[in-house]
Amino acid sequence: MNDAVQTAIIGVTGYAGAELARLLLHHPRLKGVPPLFVGRLDEKDIARGGVPLSEIHPQLTNGNGSASLKLQAFSWELLAEHNVSLLFLATPHEQSRQWVPEALARGLRVVDLSGAWRMTEAANRAIYAFSDDGTAQSNAIQSQAVYGMPELHRSKIGAAKLVANPGCYATSVILPLRPLVAAGIVDLEPGIVADSKSGVSGAGKAPTPKTHYMYAADNLSAYGVFTHRHTGELLEQIGLASGQIVFTPHLLPIPRGILSTIYVRFREPQTHAGMASIYKQFFAGSPMVRFYETSLPQIQYSVRTNYADIGFQLSPDGKRAVIVSCLDNLLKGASGQAVQNFNLMMGWSESEGLE
Amino acid sequence: MNDAVQTAIIGVTGYAGAELARLLLHHPRLKGVPPLFVGRLDEKDIARGGVPLSEIHPQLTNGNGSASLKLQAFSWELLAEHNVSLLFLATPHEQSRQWVPEALARGLRVVDLSGAWRMTEAANRAIYAFSDDGTAQSNAIQSQAVYGMPELHRSKIGAAKLVANPGCYATSVILPLRPLVAAGIVDLEPGIVADSKSGVSGAGKAPTPKTHYMYAADNLSAYGVFTHRHTGELLEQIGLASGQIVFTPHLLPIPRGILSTIYVRFREPQTHAGMASIYKQFFAGSPMVRFYETSLPQIQYSVRTNYADIGFQLSPDGKRAVIVSCLDNLLKGASGQAVQNFNLMMGWSESEGLE
Amino acid sequence: MNDAVQTAIIGVTGYAGAELARLLLHHPRLKGVPPLFVGRLDEKDIARGGVPLSEIHPQLTNGNGSASLKLQAFSWELLAEHNVSLLFLATPHEQSRQWVPEALARGLRVVDLSGAWRMTEAANRAIYAFSDDGTAQSNAIQSQAVYGMPELHRSKIGAAKLVANPGCYATSVILPLRPLVAAGIVDLEPGIVADSKSGVSGAGKAPTPKTHYMYAADNLSAYGVFTHRHTGELLEQIGLASGQIVFTPHLLPIPRGILSTIYVRFREPQTHAGMASIYKQFFAGSPMVRFYETSLPQIQYSVRTNYADIGFQLSPDGKRAVIVSCLDNLLKGASGQAVQNFNLMMGWSESEGLE
Amino acid sequence: MNDAVQTAIIGVTGYAGAELARLLLHHPRLKGVPPLFVGRLDEKDIARGGVPLSEIHPQLTNGNGSASLKLQAFSWELLAEHNVSLLFLATPHEQSRQWVPEALARGLRVVDLSGAWRMTEAANRAIYAFSDDGTAQSNAIQSQAVYGMPELHRSKIGAAKLVANPGCYATSVILPLRPLVAAGIVDLEPGIVADSKSGVSGAGKAPTPKTHYMYAADNLSAYGVFTHRHTGELLEQIGLASGQIVFTPHLLPIPRGILSTIYVRFREPQTHAGMASIYKQFFAGSPMVRFYETSLPQIQYSVRTNYADIGFQLSPDGKRAVIVSCLDNLLKGASGQAVQNFNLMMGWSESEGLE
Repeated sequence: MNDAVQTAIIGVTGYAGAELARLLLHHPRLKGVPPLFVGRLDEKDIARGGVPLSEIHPQLTNGNGSASLKLQAFSWELLAEHNVSLLFLATPHEQSRQWVPEALARGLRVVDLSGAWRMTEAANRAIYAFSDDGTAQSNAIQSQAVYGMPELHRSKIGAAKLVANPGCYATSVILPLRPLVAAGIVDLEPGIVADSKSGVSGAGKAPTPKTHYMYAADNLSAYGVFTHRHTGELLEQIGLASGQIVFTPHLLPIPRGILSTIYVRFREPQTHAGMASIYKQFFAGSPMVRFYETSLPQIQYSVRTNYADIGFQLSPDGKRAVIVSCLDNLLKGASGQAVQNFNLMMGWSESEGLE
Repeated sequence: MNDAVQTAIIGVTGYAGAELARLLLHHPRLKGVPPLFVGRLDEKDIARGGVPLSEIHPQLTNGNGSASLKLQAFSWELLAEHNVSLLFLATPHEQSRQWVPEALARGLRVVDLSGAWRMTEAANRAIYAFSDDGTAQSNAIQSQAVYGMPELHRSKIGAAKLVANPGCYATSVILPLRPLVAAGIVDLEPGIVADSKSGVSGAGKAPTPKTHYMYAADNLSAYGVFTHRHTGELLEQIGLASGQIVFTPHLLPIPRGILSTIYVRFREPQTHAGMASIYKQFFAGSPMVRFYETSLPQIQYSVRTNYADIGFQLSPDGKRAVIVSCLDNLLKGASGQAVQNFNLMMGWSESEGLE
Repeated sequence: MNDAVQTAIIGVTGYAGAELARLLLHHPRLKGVPPLFVGRLDEKDIARGGVPLSEIHPQLTNGNGSASLKLQAFSWELLAEHNVSLLFLATPHEQSRQWVPEALARGLRVVDLSGAWRMTEAANRAIYAFSDDGTAQSNAIQSQAVYGMPELHRSKIGAAKLVANPGCYATSVILPLRPLVAAGIVDLEPGIVADSKSGVSGAGKAPTPKTHYMYAADNLSAYGVFTHRHTGELLEQIGLASGQIVFTPHLLPIPRGILSTIYVRFREPQTHAGMASIYKQFFAGSPMVRFYETSLPQIQYSVRTNYADIGFQLSPDGKRAVIVSCLDNLLKGASGQAVQNFNLMMGWSESEGLE
Repeated sequence: MNDAVQTAIIGVTGYAGAELARLLLHHPRLKGVPPLFVGRLDEKDIARGGVPLSEIHPQLTNGNGSASLKLQAFSWELLAEHNVSLLFLATPHEQSRQWVPEALARGLRVVDLSGAWRMTEAANRAIYAFSDDGTAQSNAIQSQAVYGMPELHRSKIGAAKLVANPGCYATSVILPLRPLVAAGIVDLEPGIVADSKSGVSGAGKAPTPKTHYMYAADNLSAYGVFTHRHTGELLEQIGLASGQIVFTPHLLPIPRGILSTIYVRFREPQTHAGMASIYKQFFAGSPMVRFYETSLPQIQYSVRTNYADIGFQLSPDGKRAVIVSCLDNLLKGASGQAVQNFNLMMGWSESEGLE
């Protein structure tokens, strides 16, 4: 018996959509049941349907002539006809706000890769300025959304109707910090510093002055200082009050990958063994986190994998640590984590189709 | 006494415009007489004038607060008021077709960096599809345009009213081939192959899918096979009939620089000394060509200089040669060569402000 | 019943060795039977054995703590003890010359990734200057070696004791040319031009002035003009006489990938449909070649896959073509093709473990 | 009258040496008086002398055949014969320890680009483990060495016999921090964080596993955490006690350029205008620092210039700031700053030959 489920990806045209398509096309539980591929409402030529997937993503072909899958025009009827039961939204925040209520009403389960439903506190959502924020309907939906980080919310994700897939930067900061903050060893008064650097795919597929090769190559720039949208997620998931962390993203001249360098101060001096023990216990049942006990991770080791790599160096006096985390922003930072969540929602092994 | 001349650059916003601005701001003969900087008609925000140059090109500042130069709104009156006598056009082909007739009529001399006036043969111009092509006016202007490659047309450039500055790819192919074809040693029957590779700045500043970092980085692609616009210039300036050369451009994942690998066959076997002698004689009075007698040039050596570097390797039987030429597409391939032409038009040393 | 076979990789430390290790560790037919990993004789620290694979290649770890595989010290006894029946040599040419005779004598089958046994003609082998070339033993071995390009020698590979895995550049030139030359349509008199560009991994893992980031980045350089070692393979496998092709490699500022731009002239004018038909017939049973009927391949589409991508553009008069081929130099150009050969030698599907 | 001075560069073969050669060859005060170029003692082939400069650095040629300068074999007599009065040492730390005493004894003035004489406190020097540290001679020399950062020690540099040219990372951290710490507004208790990222040229010209293109490209890695040698300079020049700053360098996949992101906390809330005023006053007479009042600098703007660019963003509550500084590690971080120091030592304008 085939336990396959019919899925659909809305917004398959972007980088995260392409990675998600690739992962689901090769997912061992979905053999013979490829996802439906749907463009976004704002992509006029594509929204009509009929465009071959291989034309949008030439790398998504498997051998001579086999690439016969085409994009579909979106309609709720289309999803119903194909018995779609789980929807991946790789859409802009606003479109996710618009689609999720009806999807849930129609009994679909949703993994939303946008920032639409990630935050429970209104102050944190405010930065997105959703027009429907605070309505009874959106409050009801928000209350059932589960933040899709399996290492923190594994069991809730399994039962969730709506999973809010985390942001890429947020994942790279929450995973290394949550264990330490939860253990109560971090001195929050002086403030944590998270200095993050991301490859250009994080800026999306739209050609803009900032994604022009001539701007990004041979360059490095900081942006969104004190204002980046992922700050809200960070605070809620790590368990910090506003002002207890400074997060600064940078645009790195590489296609993909994030490295976050995180600076913490401790209440009491720590030992290497003690900190290592905290990490190893926290991630004991988490197959997609690799803890580096004696060295520091680098972007090259996690890129094109779904692993989040974490390592640290303690100051000689044990009062401070520099923690380094690395991941692929399109995989553990987006589509790979979405598949992790999907696996949990289906009751499968968390790392299925991801190694 | 200052021999300075008032110049203006129209279209200073692009990459070639920025390099030209930089060169003229530091030109030893133009001390105290910076060019007028003018945006293009199609750049609405900028065409109005008032934007600081340093905002468009942040690298064009010299020390604390001195960056007070601003872009001007274009008008013929503006040029007249400032006694502009020489105009650099770093504009799209169509705008150059539009501006040049009036500029000449008003007594201005022009160095046009576009492809508008480079070709004498209608068949070669056809690929641009200028609406005014073939009119009496455009024919008259075309007949006085001088192809701005000093190594071929030095004396004519000195006296020219209108200099058609060569294309970047064209420069990298004409310079290494013209001496050999002119010497009559090349067998034209089997056809010459020019395989050219250019950095991304050659594709212009507009953000497009092809200039997106994710497309250009870690990639290489051929384009414009058998159809690239520079083919017309190549044929006319080297002295070839259509079909005697195949020219293939490629998009290289580097910011700037062109390398052309050129394959020729000879009528009779050649010696290394013989070929070297042809090149050395041809470029004897040409300060901006560096001939590599015992090695091959690489992009890294010519980039950010105005030199065209040329070297070759002969086959063991002397019947074929692989010739390699390198240059910076924004300097010798555009703005540097424009300054060479400007120097000749003013009767100055050709390499003034270029070393 | 498990049809797994015990393999060993000698020379697992380089880039090709790492890719081979990765492919075999995930090969569906080798579950539970990982290859033995052996260093090279000249790698002193590693040749002793005991180094964890994950220390040499940090990306070859699968989750928390599971990376327990270690490198072994080479001995024939080691291979016998583990019942190794097939040996992959990712070793320098000279070491392959040295190891293969004994391996065959001991009944092992060998896939040799070096250039040691690729060429049947002494003149072509001469460039490697093997000290044992021309001896009775080496002649006997050479005569049973099969050139490991499945698209040309599929059936022979299945039965081979010794497969000489092709060079990366050679693969990118032979695959697009062999079908046309075999069809008899190419005019060989004027000579074919193959202008090839390869990423830096092709230059090997040893730190040298040429593999220094500062040399390779933002640069392009031609090398080995008229002298590159792969020329011998090209001639033999395409079926050309010396002098009928000029092959020029270039060092491209990307980690991996080869693009070859190939220029041919035809005896008689060709049509697009006619040429396409030749390619489609030739590669009909070849799952690892993708023919691009209406566009040209780019490096980005084949990199990190085992596909060789081929496309072409015909000149308007049909007398010439520019053919573009792309592949990943470490996969279809080395380790992926080695796995293709391995699959054929085992009687499995050619693309097993490669999609 | 020519005020030129005969200089010599020892260690011209590295990246800093090449940039220094280029700057001095074009220095307006040194026309007709090129530096003597000398290799390092440990570079055997080059130490013998006779190698053309253009062979070591192919970009250092000026037109056809003019590149006749050759490297010399080092001897004190050579320097005496040519009346060298000022020596640039672009040598390893140990060689600078060895050469400086005799150079000073012979009446030469020295600009030393190594870390040999930068630190007054023994604890900070300890990390270099100089064998002569603490001797009477080395103490005497150390006491007359001036830290060569004109923005901090302009007048002392003018009179110095020995200038210890700052480290590249150190320059990028000291310049943005010194003004704030000196103004007394920084809260030193929680500790400053300096997260620095440098291009590969900072790792030197020797081919190593870390400078291999395959390691550096598409990657980012932290190194030297809590242990980098530049930490000593930082502490002394900013005026901090050990433990008041955490400095973490990263290897960036670009050829050149440093960006430091610096996190400070204030004793009292600050205003943007107040901080800007501190910077503007501090750097009022410093032509080589560009203060960005309303935006943040990026690597692309300072690379290939001698400017240090500084900008900042204040937190909404005014209690914290993120400061960004950028410079070219080979210019303001090494050879350009050396020329600044040279200019001051000669009584010339600080920015001569640097714009």
